[in-house]
Amino acid sequence: MKKTHSNLLPRLEEHFRDRRFFKVRQKILVACSGGPDSVALFHLLRALITKYDWKLGLVHFNHQLRPSDAKKDERFVKALARKFKAPFYCGTGSVKHEAKRTKTSIEEAARKMRYDFFLQTAQAKKFQAIALAHTRDDQAETVLMRVLQGTGLRGLQGIREKFRTGRVTWVRPLLVFTKKELLQYLTEQKIFYRFDKSNDSSRFIRNRIRLELIPQLQRDFNPRVVEALSRIPAIVAGESALIEELEEKAWKKTFKKRRGKNVELRRSVFLKSPPALQFRIVEKALKMLNKQSGLSFEAWERIRQGLVRHRYRSSLPKDIDFALTPKNVTIFMKQEVHNQI
Amino acid sequence: MKKTHSNLLPRLEEHFRDRRFFKVRQKILVACSGGPDSVALFHLLRALITKYDWKLGLVHFNHQLRPSDAKKDERFVKALARKFKAPFYCGTGSVKHEAKRTKTSIEEAARKMRYDFFLQTAQAKKFQAIALAHTRDDQAETVLMRVLQGTGLRGLQGIREKFRTGRVTWVRPLLVFTKKELLQYLTEQKIFYRFDKSNDSSRFIRNRIRLELIPQLQRDFNPRVVEALSRIPAIVAGESALIEELEEKAWKKTFKKRRGKNVELRRSVFLKSPPALQFRIVEKALKMLNKQSGLSFEAWERIRQGLVRHRYRSSLPKDIDFALTPKNVTIFMKQEVHNQI
Repeated sequence: MKKTHSNLLPRLEEHFRDRRFFKVRQKILVACSGGPDSVALFHLLRALITKYDWKLGLVHFNHQLRPSDAKKDERFVKALARKFKAPFYCGTGSVKHEAKRTKTSIEEAARKMRYDFFLQTAQAKKFQAIALAHTRDDQAETVLMRVLQGTGLRGLQGIREKFRTGRVTWVRPLLVFTKKELLQYLTEQKIFYRFDKSNDSSRFIRNRIRLELIPQLQRDFNPRVVEALSRIPAIVAGESALIEELEEKAWKKTFKKRRGKNVELRRSVFLKSPPALQFRIVEKALKMLNKQSGLSFEAWERIRQGLVRHRYRSSLPKDIDFALTPKNVTIFMKQEVHNQI
Repeated sequence: MKKTHSNLLPRLEEHFRDRRFFKVRQKILVACSGGPDSVALFHLLRALITKYDWKLGLVHFNHQLRPSDAKKDERFVKALARKFKAPFYCGTGSVKHEAKRTKTSIEEAARKMRYDFFLQTAQAKKFQAIALAHTRDDQAETVLMRVLQGTGLRGLQGIREKFRTGRVTWVRPLLVFTKKELLQYLTEQKIFYRFDKSNDSSRFIRNRIRLELIPQLQRDFNPRVVEALSRIPAIVAGESALIEELEEKAWKKTFKKRRGKNVELRRSVFLKSPPALQFRIVEKALKMLNKQSGLSFEAWERIRQGLVRHRYRSSLPKDIDFALTPKNVTIFMKQEVHNQI
């Protein structure tokens, strides 16, 4: 390992200890696109490998979006794995196809396919952790995007640092480092990486936020805007955790039963809850009936205004209805309306 | 009253009932600059005056910033009051002087002097409510400004709709209406108002946000960005209220005593609290010693990292120190350091 001028590695190590990202002797699967962030992540983890006795693997997903580049990216990551004797796993699939099938955006479909493959690989090959290379810049962009589209506390949590899916922990150890710091590290260490072509177009909102809006905000409003934005999730995370605890308790007291396309809640307990918890209870019931359903603030405001009455009905997204009856609050799929009331 | 094409008045009335802004037979003091928003507010309230039996007064503050214009604004509001037989109260003071004396910005000093005068007038003349004319646009600008500077849950609450100072309630009944809607109402009703000159320069960050950034975000990112931004405080308000309840309980359990320049907290209770509440407890103790003191997230992160130790000291803003001792957590003014530890 070459002598480094930036102090990225010691800072990273201290940050790892503070957040307890990984345990000693863990098998860590590093998601790698071949771009600078994920290549830096692999090298940084590798620099700590003997000290913590980790086993590293590399996982890559070929989205087939820019065929010739995609193949080169894949080969680059494969060569990286071979050089450092790390196992290499590569998945692929037609994102365009999947986007059409699921009626989602290319970006959304790509994300879903990629993450599904990462998780399957981790489970099949017994990796306990998946490391993702998101940076402080990604965090700032996410927060700004959510703010511009309108969001609540949950959206302001931004990209999460750590979460679990079954036995696998997803970790983003680089969220407090900027892309610039990573690039500096790569340059100092003379490490090669691939340029991420998809970032070079202003096609997606996120890219326009990255390439146009953030530089402009830095210039005209606050040179430290990336830090300001990326700090919001850190501040909000603790407060959000408290609310989630309250939500869980309130849900246990309010939930009565689920019967097919129908969730029943205790009316009196529901009406006594503070509005912010009522919102979350309705949202949770909605998600039980349709995972893709979300409660907009406007829909909730409409419902809230009817809560003063004895009997009351209101429409929610995804053909779900909300009904206040003398004993219950019922959230149900619309086709069953006539049997219910 | 002329027939109106926009439905502003019925919407306003419904909104008033929903939020319970004012009571029947209340004396309401309308803060009026002479600009479109506050002139519209006065006329809208006046349209409901017989129905709710309110008494309206007009209050104006002359900042002496643009002498000739300021005098014209004052005369305009005075004439408005005379025309509708409303009592008129006018205050003045040198904002430049006050800004220098208190080492704050012109904007900050103007706000403080103006609001102090409104409150004193309400108290002296026995008004129960002060009505302020902030719009949805003001709310959006505030949220965006806070986000760009970095903020937590409290900053995201934006401009509050209603709060109390002693016996006086401050109300902003127009926060859900856009400036455009108010202008349309003024045009339809053929109501005159003064142009607010201070908004025409790009001198202040807020004005640049209003005149440059928001129009650009509407054009390039989200045509409904004002709505998106102004919705955040409404969503966050409920969740923030819940946290404040928890904070109050936690404070009661943690606070031990205050002695001069020194606030003592129970160490074990403090350490057992969730981090988000620890943050708020320290912030509250800080404010007891110096009202102007605030806890930055960076300062708090430094403190938090030391909490694992038995004894520990850290510096906070405004020459205040934080100390962890075997039995207490003490927040104290620095000059007393040597007597304390």
